[in-house]
Amino acid sequence: MQIDNLLKQVAFIKEIDKLKYIQRKTKLFNSDRHENDAEHSWHLAMMTIVLAEHSDKPIDVLKVLKMVLIHDIVEIDAGDIFIYDSAKSHANTDEERIAAKRIFGLLPVEQAEEFIAIWEEFEEGATDDAKFAKAMDRFEPLLQNTSNNGGTWAEFNVPYQKVYNKKKAIKNGSKAIWNYAENLLNESVDKGILIKQTD
Amino acid sequence: MQIDNLLKQVAFIKEIDKLKYIQRKTKLFNSDRHENDAEHSWHLAMMTIVLAEHSDKPIDVLKVLKMVLIHDIVEIDAGDIFIYDSAKSHANTDEERIAAKRIFGLLPVEQAEEFIAIWEEFEEGATDDAKFAKAMDRFEPLLQNTSNNGGTWAEFNVPYQKVYNKKKAIKNGSKAIWNYAENLLNESVDKGILIKQTD
Repeated sequence: MQIDNLLKQVAFIKEIDKLKYIQRKTKLFNSDRHENDAEHSWHLAMMTIVLAEHSDKPIDVLKVLKMVLIHDIVEIDAGDIFIYDSAKSHANTDEERIAAKRIFGLLPVEQAEEFIAIWEEFEEGATDDAKFAKAMDRFEPLLQNTSNNGGTWAEFNVPYQKVYNKKKAIKNGSKAIWNYAENLLNESVDKGILIKQTD
Repeated sequence: MQIDNLLKQVAFIKEIDKLKYIQRKTKLFNSDRHENDAEHSWHLAMMTIVLAEHSDKPIDVLKVLKMVLIHDIVEIDAGDIFIYDSAKSHANTDEERIAAKRIFGLLPVEQAEEFIAIWEEFEEGATDDAKFAKAMDRFEPLLQNTSNNGGTWAEFNVPYQKVYNKKKAIKNGSKAIWNYAENLLNESVDKGILIKQTD
């Protein structure tokens, strides 16, 4: 039984290596180099540990860590969808559900079920743990884009209003981090690296 | 106070982005592309979650996750030292201690002290948590090298005995994983991708 589990787990460990090849639209800090999903997931895990004290609600840090570490694994099959892409929905597509079944399904049954449940909880974003995990996922690219002269906002002409609507999810996890983030957005408008559309 | 902490934490979050540029000697699975320290740390975190059940002793999974997520951050200043480099000691050099002080020192004092203590616990390798974390750190490149026709063993002519001596640390964390790892080493010798030196 133990060896059966181990063989399945090693197969999963090998498979998820592919996350290192999934490129995001955002770039590293002060850089032209695209970030990949594995690097991104590590960074969110570090942010979770470091920033947990700012959560407005009590959170289970281990649970949040699991969420951010696995949240993009479905992209191995489904690919990264740009958050400001209006043609495609970002969250929980059929493609992503099928990917979750296939990839987490490499694990022993109980573990597969646990991982799929954690991934779904993250995607739904309804629990305090998921809200904090989502806040981390929105905060990292905000910091990156401000370090990169507007980054993807400038590159893809994403206006302030659209960015604001995505970023305000940070508020559901932490008012303190949201205050900081909102200031960064306003500063970005003042600097001209994020553009307010007029009607 | 809360905003003071947040400013320090954001400075740290930006600084550790540099881990994504630190290249390891080992390469991704079935690949010619070098792995970087951030990707490696993410992979160890995933392995910790997935393989925790095989630990011979009860472990604090959250603590082990913190260990593997931060264990290489000192390399931002000190660089990656190849584990089979006999000219340089891998563990806890003065350079690494200075790096830990500088980089973790960007955080609020209490957090800096916690991170330095966790890093030192990992480096010392004496506690059950550290033993399991070290087992993960030894197991990942073993899996990578066997997928890469010997990988760094072949590239740098590292003989079986030297590899075995490093890898046997896995046994201190998990006998089940060690059994699996020892078999992989023997298979590698049989396949001729890992060479036994004769006297």
